[in-house]
Order: sequence, then C-alpha cells, then structure tokens
Amino acid sequence: MKGFKRQKGQEKPQYAESRNKRADLAKKDAQPVDDEQSGKGKSVSRRDLLKLAGVGGLGLLLGGGGVGAVLSASQRLESMMTAADTKDVVPFYGKHQAGIVTPAQDFICFAAFDLMTRDKEQVRNLFKAWTEASATMTSGVLLGTDNENLNLPPSDTGEAAGLSPSRTTITFGVGPSFFDGRYGLAGLKPAGFRELPRFQGDALEEQWCGGDIGVQVCANDLQVAFHALRNLARIARGTAVLRWTQEGFQRTAQADPAGSTPRNLLGFKDGTGNPDTSKADEMNRLVWTQANDGPAWMGDGSYMAVRRIRMRVEVWDRSTLGDQENTFGRHRSSGAPLGKTKEFDKLDLAATNPEGKPLTPPTSHVALAHGDGSINILRRSYSYSSGLDKQTGQLDAGLLFISYQRDLFKQFVHIQEKLARNDKLNEYIVHKGSAVFACFPGVSQGGYIGDTLF
Amino acid sequence: MKGFKRQKGQEKPQYAESRNKRADLAKKDAQPVDDEQSGKGKSVSRRDLLKLAGVGGLGLLLGGGGVGAVLSASQRLESMMTAADTKDVVPFYGKHQAGIVTPAQDFICFAAFDLMTRDKEQVRNLFKAWTEASATMTSGVLLGTDNENLNLPPSDTGEAAGLSPSRTTITFGVGPSFFDGRYGLAGLKPAGFRELPRFQGDALEEQWCGGDIGVQVCANDLQVAFHALRNLARIARGTAVLRWTQEGFQRTAQADPAGSTPRNLLGFKDGTGNPDTSKADEMNRLVWTQANDGPAWMGDGSYMAVRRIRMRVEVWDRSTLGDQENTFGRHRSSGAPLGKTKEFDKLDLAATNPEGKPLTPPTSHVALAHGDGSINILRRSYSYSSGLDKQTGQLDAGLLFISYQRDLFKQFVHIQEKLARNDKLNEYIVHKGSAVFACFPGVSQGGYIGDTLF
Repeated sequence: MKGFKRQKGQEKPQYAESRNKRADLAKKDAQPVDDEQSGKGKSVSRRDLLKLAGVGGLGLLLGGGGVGAVLSASQRLESMMTAADTKDVVPFYGKHQAGIVTPAQDFICFAAFDLMTRDKEQVRNLFKAWTEASATMTSGVLLGTDNENLNLPPSDTGEAAGLSPSRTTITFGVGPSFFDGRYGLAGLKPAGFRELPRFQGDALEEQWCGGDIGVQVCANDLQVAFHALRNLARIARGTAVLRWTQEGFQRTAQADPAGSTPRNLLGFKDGTGNPDTSKADEMNRLVWTQANDGPAWMGDGSYMAVRRIRMRVEVWDRSTLGDQENTFGRHRSSGAPLGKTKEFDKLDLAATNPEGKPLTPPTSHVALAHGDGSINILRRSYSYSSGLDKQTGQLDAGLLFISYQRDLFKQFVHIQEKLARNDKLNEYIVHKGSAVFACFPGVSQGGYIGDTLF
Repeated sequence: MKGFKRQKGQEKPQYAESRNKRADLAKKDAQPVDDEQSGKGKSVSRRDLLKLAGVGGLGLLLGGGGVGAVLSASQRLESMMTAADTKDVVPFYGKHQAGIVTPAQDFICFAAFDLMTRDKEQVRNLFKAWTEASATMTSGVLLGTDNENLNLPPSDTGEAAGLSPSRTTITFGVGPSFFDGRYGLAGLKPAGFRELPRFQGDALEEQWCGGDIGVQVCANDLQVAFHALRNLARIARGTAVLRWTQEGFQRTAQADPAGSTPRNLLGFKDGTGNPDTSKADEMNRLVWTQANDGPAWMGDGSYMAVRRIRMRVEVWDRSTLGDQENTFGRHRSSGAPLGKTKEFDKLDLAATNPEGKPLTPPTSHVALAHGDGSINILRRSYSYSSGLDKQTGQLDAGLLFISYQRDLFKQFVHIQEKLARNDKLNEYIVHKGSAVFACFPGVSQGGYIGDTLF
C-alpha cells in the first residue's frame, strides 16, 4: 500500500501533528494534467483531485499507534489539502517529460549514471521502478510502504518528509553509450547521436563527462531535489551507479518574487533570448523531436546538452564594465542589448555607432549565439558553486549549462562551434564537463520511462 | 557615494524598470536595530527608516542615461520601500554579531581564510573594508560606487542585483593561528583557545580544516549568499586567501512555511533540543562570552566550532528503521523521544520498557549529547551535498555542523568527546573537517569587525 504522506509518523494520531498541510497527491491517479506544453504550472483544483481520486481509488494507510487504518482517498485528500498545496506539483505523467519546458525551478541536482548490467530486462525494471518512484516523489509522497516497520530499512530516506512537493520534476534521458550493443538496441540509436565533438578550448575532465543515463532533478527546494536523486540512486543499486553529479541554483522566488531573468555568476542576465515556452508551435519547431525526425521512440522527446562551464570569476572581476558589456553584448544592469535601454528590446546586430562601428561587437557572446536568429535552443542552466579548486585555490564556480533541442547538431553544436572559436567570453570561461542525452517522450499512465524504446 | 540599489542600471530611468521593489536600506544609518538578543527579525518601519536616514543623510546617486542626479535619502527611500521589504533585512550592527542567535536562514556559504600578510595594519584595514561591505551587502545594496563606470571593474560583481537582502548575515571570527605572533596579538589569545583535540574516529583532511579567519554567510537565497562571500574574498585580495569553503542548505521556507525543525540527510529532525534563542538569560549562559570569561575583547562574542561531517548515506539507507531510531534515540517521523509521541515531549533517559531496559539506548546520539542536561550548545548546522567522492563513487554528502558556545572546551569538547567514544551514530558518519573561531562581539555604528581586539 503506497501513498504515505511524507510527514506522517507511526507514533501518534496522524493528522494531529500536521504542521504543514499540503496536498497529499497520491501518485498516479491524481496527476493526469499535462501542463508541459504551455510551460505554465496549471493548478489542479481540489475538486478535480477528489474527482480523479475517486472513492477507493487510492488505498491509503493511516498508521496510528501501530494500528493501520484505511481511509478513502477522498477522505484523506479532503483532510490534507489546502488551496496552496496543489500549485506546488508539476504532474509527472504527460505527453512530454516535465522539466524541459517547465519554467525553471530554483535548484537542480543533476546526475549521470552508468549501467552495471548487460541484462536488458534489468534495465527495463530499473526504468519501471524509477517511473513509480518519480511519480511518487514529484507528488510529495513518501516512497514505498515500509516507512513504519522497525524491522526493515525504510522505503524512503525521509529527509523530505513534511516538505511540499516544491514543483519537483525528474527528467530522464540516455546517452550514446546506452546504444553500444549491450542491450540489443544499437539499431535504435538516433542517426548521428553521439558525444559532442571536441570544441576549441575545451578542457574536459572525465569526472564531469558522459553517462549511460542522465537524470535532471529540479525543484524549488534543494533538500527535496537531493532527496529525489538520492532515492533514485538507491533504487538503482546493483543495476546502475552514479557517474557524476552536480548541484546548481538560481535565485529563489523569495528573493525575486517577480521572476526576473536570473543572473549568472558573472553578474549578467542569462536567458533573455530564450524562446517562449508557452508557444507550442515554437516548442515543436525547436525543442520536441517530431515524428519524422528519427526513430519513432524519440517522438515528443528532446535532446539534452549538458556542459559544466567553469567561470574564472577572479579574472572576470578585474575586467572593466565596458569590457564585460562588450563581452556579453548586453548591458549588465538592465540586460538590454548594447545601446538599448530595456532587457527585451530587440537585438539589432546591424546597428552602428556614429563612427560606423557595430554597437554590438561581432565576437560578443550574444552576437555569435544569436547569429541570424534562425537557430535557437531552449536553455535551462543553473549556477554552481562547488568549493575551491584544489589546484588553484580559486572558486570552483560557474554554470551548469543545459539546453534542450530537437536536433543536437543542427542547433547546439552549430551555435557552440561559433562560440568556441570566437566568443570573447572564452577568456573567462572553460568547459570542464560535457554530456548529451536523448530524453524520452513523456510517460502515460500505466507506462514507464523509455517504454517507447524497449 | 555609496548605496546604489542592486537592481538599478545606468541605461534607463531608474524607477521605471524596478521589477522587485524592496527596501533600499542604505548601509549604516538605516540599521541600528539589534534584533540578535531576541532571535526575532524585528521589522524596521518605513517611518523609522526615513527618520534615521535624515535629509541628506544618505547621498544617493541616481544614474539615468549617463547623467547622475542626487536624490535626498528620504525621497529615495520613499520611492523604493514597501512594507514587505524591511522584514528581509537582519541588521548588521548591534551588540552581538548577527548569524548566531538569528533564526537559521535556508542557506550557508562558509569560508575559512588565511592571511598572507604580517602587517597588522593591513589586517585591520581588511576588517574595516569587510565591515563596510558586510553592512552594505546585508542591506541588499550594490557594493561601492563604480558600478556604472565603463572604464573600471564594477565595485560589485552583480549577481545579486535585483534580489532581496534575503536576511543575509555575515559572522566573523578568528582561529587560533591568528594569535601565532605575526600581529603582536599572541598575548590576547583567550586562555586555552586552540584547535580541537583529535577525537576518536576523526578522519580529518587538511583541505577542510583550520583557518586564520572564519566567515559564516547565511541567507535565504544561495545566490545572495554566494555573492556576499565572493565579494568578501575579492576585497581580501592581497591580504587573505580562501583556505576552504563549504556551501550548505536546509529546507526552504517555501517547502515548509511552518518552519518545522529541519531534517538532516539521515532523515531525522536535527535541532529539537536546541536552547531557546529568545531567552536572553539562556543565551548569556550558553552562547555569549561574558565579561569575566576571558580577554575583554571577546565580551559579547561567542566561540564557533565547525565540523564537516560526511554521512555514509548508502550504509545508513540499508539499516532498519529500528536501528536508525535506536541510533538517534528519537522516532524518525515525529522527532519524539523514543516511547513518546510528540517532538517536544520531554526526554526521559531513565524511562524503561517492561523488561526494565532503557527506552533510549545509553549510547544513542541523543542520550550521549544530552547527558544530564547541564551542558548545552547552540547548534546551527546545514546539510551539504558536494557531488561524488572521487575515491569511492559515493555521495559526498552530510552535515556542516556548526555550534556556538560560550566556552569551547567546557561545552562542545565535553559533548563531542562522549560522542566520539560511544555514539552509535559513528557507524554512519565520519568527521572530515574541523575548525574553531573566536567570533567577535557585534560592531557598533562607526566601528569595525574586531575593533575590540585591535
């Protein structure tokens, strides 16, 4: 029996001590809303939930003094829910995976896994277990049934007990090495899907590269995100091991309630030119793999590029504001294109100053990344700060760059090759890690991650 | 001229684009409220601020299209402030340093610095510069005056521009090595102040130990905290270098609006038995160094112990709930003492089960830490997650333990020696880092950090 509310314990009447009422959205049945196309978190109303749950649709164990009792789903949901609760859940199931066009949450725990088995069935079972766990954790519910049995290890590690779902999304993809023949799936590898070419200036380190499987956990709470990733790793024991991980952050909503474009650690707004995720046509053109693009199993999926980009913040901090603005091609304070006043003013690369020189240097980051405007990607990056670089004593801080695109090479690689060759920003950054993942389409109720592939 | 509002730029009318109105609390004059004794964030009213600022008390440059204009402080504050703004500031100045009895914010960036100079005057100047910068940054104001001049490196690195002050606190202390004679201050070292003894089981690594100076930055936003630490490091260039740093987190307020006791990464509530910071007498007894305790310069200061404690989460996750609860001596779900039902039920170490055995194992964490209840410390710990341990491939996650106490040896060392010898928890944790710092008393208006020592 599943669906324990995270904060519930065994030693006391269950509801008496609830300090933090929130939706006890039971896993699958309560989450049929796919909000991913719109990019907006659609609120699931209380009435919707009760209706979806249905009487007896969710058997929920109510532990009390060691004696279990079953409440109907509607009773339980009625008891627990407040209006504020539902907006905090991003549905796991849907046409597309959540965490791609979903508005970026405040934190990320990213992980690459390597598979330790040659047994395809074992991999399939891992994905099934991960599906169930992901649907549970994104609902803010404790994993599994054994959280009250003193004689067993708890099913859930517990550190997110009592915390809201925090808009957690968990997004899965497989790397090129997944198709190396171990599982008889080599023939299903998308044409041309491979690790990224070596770009000029790359200083990649094995410890931040590659992986058979990529998992992006995002949430508005770092402890909640950590909990999800740790439990996925725990479930994978014997089948897959962590290859590398990276935590990241953006500014929190409490610090920026208006949700301005976040700034990177070089102090500049990052993401101003991102495509509008509320436009389904644009997302189909730029982000979602279309039916004719490649193997059928990738339809409605997307390709993820991950780059761990170290920023030489100490060097940057010694450059003048003029240099910094010419490097990015935008004003630092407003985020406006050079010579403009507002962040979302149109970029005009042809504009010149009175001396006839381009206002925006052609080798600035924005000029190269924008090009003629025909090639775009959906960026979903986070800042990271990982203590000191032991070799240099400088801050190991920078950007966990993540982008999603319909075609890795026509989009990301096309842009990155230009940047790697000429970007003025290269003086201040160095790419230390790299990975690509083919992210599956969304999962339907009753399905599992990767079921279109297996 | 100081006091630029973080989100303001040069290329546009200043107020037109304000997306995130908040108090533009100008540094010193606006912050005379010491809320540290109470542990509560006292709101500074709008009227108070205007009164404190005074006409012309704060010269504030208003840049617009490259042309500067000066607004009176009252005009500026009137323009910018909203009721919501002020509660987000913890005053920097006061009798005690903020960040000790201040209710724990959601994030920490901790750093230990080593001094590179033998010139006492240079150290004093560093502390003066840090004082000014800390007062500015905790107010949410951009550092310095050169954030609009294209020909200079910006005074502020900019990544917190537009973000609220996020209740930032910055707390300073000096380590035993500070008194090694370089600065002629050896005679002022508090009696017995030295690095912690080696405890049984310690597996300390130099990379997480010691430091001439310790700086604890806490905030409700990790980007804001990072910004503060980075700018302090930048200001120190040529005088002090980072020795080690560690980021940490607790659950955010958005995930737990009720502010329940946070859980550590072993899934247990951590801090239930902490003394009540709202009781000034208790704080004077346990936390604040009293006039007769030692050198005069430490009066109203406190001693900080920092331990980087790695948790063997993979091993823990395989232990039974019964083992886990006997290890901590509390129920996992509720946080209640074993045999009790509510988190704050009184711990009764004499209670026995029907067979006459203690309900709480004498070697459980809580039994050893509590002892007879006469020795206590104020804990202020954060969880950390720092990727993978490269040697083992396991998560490098755990607890950045921080405690404050009036006497390091009578309090922290007394407890830790018992724990190190017998704590059942030792099977699942290992201490990797250690440092102690004598944290100065608070700074008065016009004073600087450490001025009682210099």
